[in-house]
Amino acid sequence: MIVVIGGGPAGRFGAMHLAQAGKEVRLIEQRRIGGQCLHERCMLVCALNDVARLIEYARTQKDLGILDSVPAVSYPMIRRRVCEVQEKLSSVLDAETRAAGVEVVYGAEGHLEGSRAFIDDEEIRADAVLAATGSRAATPAVPGTDLFGVYTYRTLSAMPDLPRRMVVIGGGVAAAEFAHIFRAFGSEVEIVARHGLLRDLDPKVRSAVLRDLAGVCIREGTPVASIEGAGRVRSVLLSDGGEIEADAVLLATGLVPRSESLQGLRKGPDGAIIVDRQMRTSVENVYAAGDVIGPPYLTPAARREGVVAAENILGRDTVMDYEGIPQALSLRYDYAFASTGADGGVTLSAPAPAGPGSFWDVTKGWAGLTQIRVDPETGCLIGAAAGVPGASALLSYLGYLMKRGITVYDFDDIVEVHPSTDGVSGLSRYAAGMLRKKKG
Amino acid sequence: MIVVIGGGPAGRFGAMHLAQAGKEVRLIEQRRIGGQCLHERCMLVCALNDVARLIEYARTQKDLGILDSVPAVSYPMIRRRVCEVQEKLSSVLDAETRAAGVEVVYGAEGHLEGSRAFIDDEEIRADAVLAATGSRAATPAVPGTDLFGVYTYRTLSAMPDLPRRMVVIGGGVAAAEFAHIFRAFGSEVEIVARHGLLRDLDPKVRSAVLRDLAGVCIREGTPVASIEGAGRVRSVLLSDGGEIEADAVLLATGLVPRSESLQGLRKGPDGAIIVDRQMRTSVENVYAAGDVIGPPYLTPAARREGVVAAENILGRDTVMDYEGIPQALSLRYDYAFASTGADGGVTLSAPAPAGPGSFWDVTKGWAGLTQIRVDPETGCLIGAAAGVPGASALLSYLGYLMKRGITVYDFDDIVEVHPSTDGVSGLSRYAAGMLRKKKG
Repeated sequence: MIVVIGGGPAGRFGAMHLAQAGKEVRLIEQRRIGGQCLHERCMLVCALNDVARLIEYARTQKDLGILDSVPAVSYPMIRRRVCEVQEKLSSVLDAETRAAGVEVVYGAEGHLEGSRAFIDDEEIRADAVLAATGSRAATPAVPGTDLFGVYTYRTLSAMPDLPRRMVVIGGGVAAAEFAHIFRAFGSEVEIVARHGLLRDLDPKVRSAVLRDLAGVCIREGTPVASIEGAGRVRSVLLSDGGEIEADAVLLATGLVPRSESLQGLRKGPDGAIIVDRQMRTSVENVYAAGDVIGPPYLTPAARREGVVAAENILGRDTVMDYEGIPQALSLRYDYAFASTGADGGVTLSAPAPAGPGSFWDVTKGWAGLTQIRVDPETGCLIGAAAGVPGASALLSYLGYLMKRGITVYDFDDIVEVHPSTDGVSGLSRYAAGMLRKKKG
Repeated sequence: MIVVIGGGPAGRFGAMHLAQAGKEVRLIEQRRIGGQCLHERCMLVCALNDVARLIEYARTQKDLGILDSVPAVSYPMIRRRVCEVQEKLSSVLDAETRAAGVEVVYGAEGHLEGSRAFIDDEEIRADAVLAATGSRAATPAVPGTDLFGVYTYRTLSAMPDLPRRMVVIGGGVAAAEFAHIFRAFGSEVEIVARHGLLRDLDPKVRSAVLRDLAGVCIREGTPVASIEGAGRVRSVLLSDGGEIEADAVLLATGLVPRSESLQGLRKGPDGAIIVDRQMRTSVENVYAAGDVIGPPYLTPAARREGVVAAENILGRDTVMDYEGIPQALSLRYDYAFASTGADGGVTLSAPAPAGPGSFWDVTKGWAGLTQIRVDPETGCLIGAAAGVPGASALLSYLGYLMKRGITVYDFDDIVEVHPSTDGVSGLSRYAAGMLRKKKG
């Protein structure tokens, strides 16, 4: 019997992989299957952003006289409908997991004391354990985070209606995504970032991202001193003495691994379970995967980690490869990027072609962004970024192709579907022409 | 000097490729650069469908109570704005073409008499000629096609306003795409197909397509006898005696190569210039590419044919490869498919995951479609189809990967961006698991 603790992407994929290989697998899930990915993060952002994008595109088309009006949003109905869809998807995942042969136990808590596994208080004999307990939203150490009207992405579904003024505290992807969504819905939104907003992004990609955040007030290098209010939030007090009025505050200050129930395993300072590239913890036959082992906090990486753990439990030596994993954020457009990890190379940027989702933005003089990084010696594509509708799907496959050593010369053989917002193909062919010329 | 006749995708890409290689190139374009792709087909459908999808998604969200209203469309404004964007994109293409070193001559007609090339009536000495004069909309041989209110995609921009009732005559991709668009805009739409509507599609893909055409009346196996009216169209008379009232008729009855100005070259029965795989015509130093050589009538294929012609003009033996070229149609979702051309294999289908653009459709019980065809011996992916938002971008890269021999086992190394509507990755991994199990 193999015990899997946690039914998010890592636990679920690991469990299904083991069951399909013929193992007896028991998956323990405290709440609903699907993890934060389905219930609080990726899919929630997807749900809200599908509405936000519609509103924004409607605004553009209304400005052009093409549409006669811009619909208004009912946030309480979004909340209700999101839950309905999440329940539906959760039951699809439940059925899929069981169909793979996994026994799913709901409502119980799985915990570990070294190699000893417990379901609630009952010890259970397990040949191996996969711990995939996920993460939780970090709460900044400032007064007032317990006021009514202060949310994390986890409690956002409890927000009764659209706030008039929302302050988003944080400088990462989630801060940008939620700010964009609530701005599109009509709230006044201000981002307060202790250091900077998305400062790790390539400067050109970041500029494109900031265009999508037009209308959002962004304050950088400004730590929050406290959240003020009597019972309910009234304002955010900044360490520089400034005060921002708000009737809602969203804490988007990162994630911390949820490992309290996993005792006797070696952990990092933030509580992340320390694993090797085979997902083995410090305790024999105990594996960990997903957010509980720390960044990158990405669903596809977590799924893959779960499968890698399962493979090793099955005795097939497999290591996790983090190379070429694409990352993305979803605003008006998708912004997605991947790299092989190689340094250097020549970087080229160009506007992306107008296509589905961006045709009417041409009227604003807007174009998407394409960027590639090429090793001029070999012609290998070693990095790519796109800021266009559909960029995420593009980068999923480009990340893989880069890992496989695709060169800019190979793009001659890619015949794309037209029209497309993919500028990477065209820019790569251009780079191939340049390199060929240079080499005479 | 090399003369290129026609500034559509084939001529423009061929001309730029030659100029970048150092050749003196003169491109002759009667009207505006960009060809039918920009002015009458791909980009027009993209423009209209970006509005149509917005309306449809707004309807879904209105039904859910998320939005308070569905905007109405002003067709005259769409017409005007589409032209503005096309002019803008045309000037971008003009600048790009000139920047590549091509001399562009507008307003003149290029024609050929065997190996002799003329610009208007003046003969011009050319070392080689690339003929890329494109295609035109076919007009069915029935009475009444000259009535006011009868359009092809080429004249559609002259339609003054949304018709109350539109009849679309044709059974191909364009018929489906325009029917979907005008139905979304609020017209009553009926498709009349002589044989069938999209009968060549895989049955599962076709079923998904038909769901997107819900609300459109489809009549198959029904040839049109005539289009009736006095001055302006009033109805379409069917050969079975039926009559359909209409205030607009759209002829979507295919394309014919536009080769009248190209004399002395061997042609097929429909006028298509006959070329070999190096794009060489029956006359030495005369090459042809794009719609004028006949199907597949696809922009990316035309571009590639132009480049292949250019390569051969440059003396570098290059053949056109039609393998793995993806095809697509754009309705509420994209429907895209590609195949290596290999027969047989095992076909698997599954619902696609909900993701950007399809999240709220879960409330209707809708899911996208994923289909793969796998060679069970080798694990090679030999065919794929997707009916999801963003399917076109997916299939562009999948078409290439299939050509390169990707197997379902390789998908373990693809770490996608989440959430995504790409079901091909997941289904391929599932197939890999099945095949591994079978092989023990």
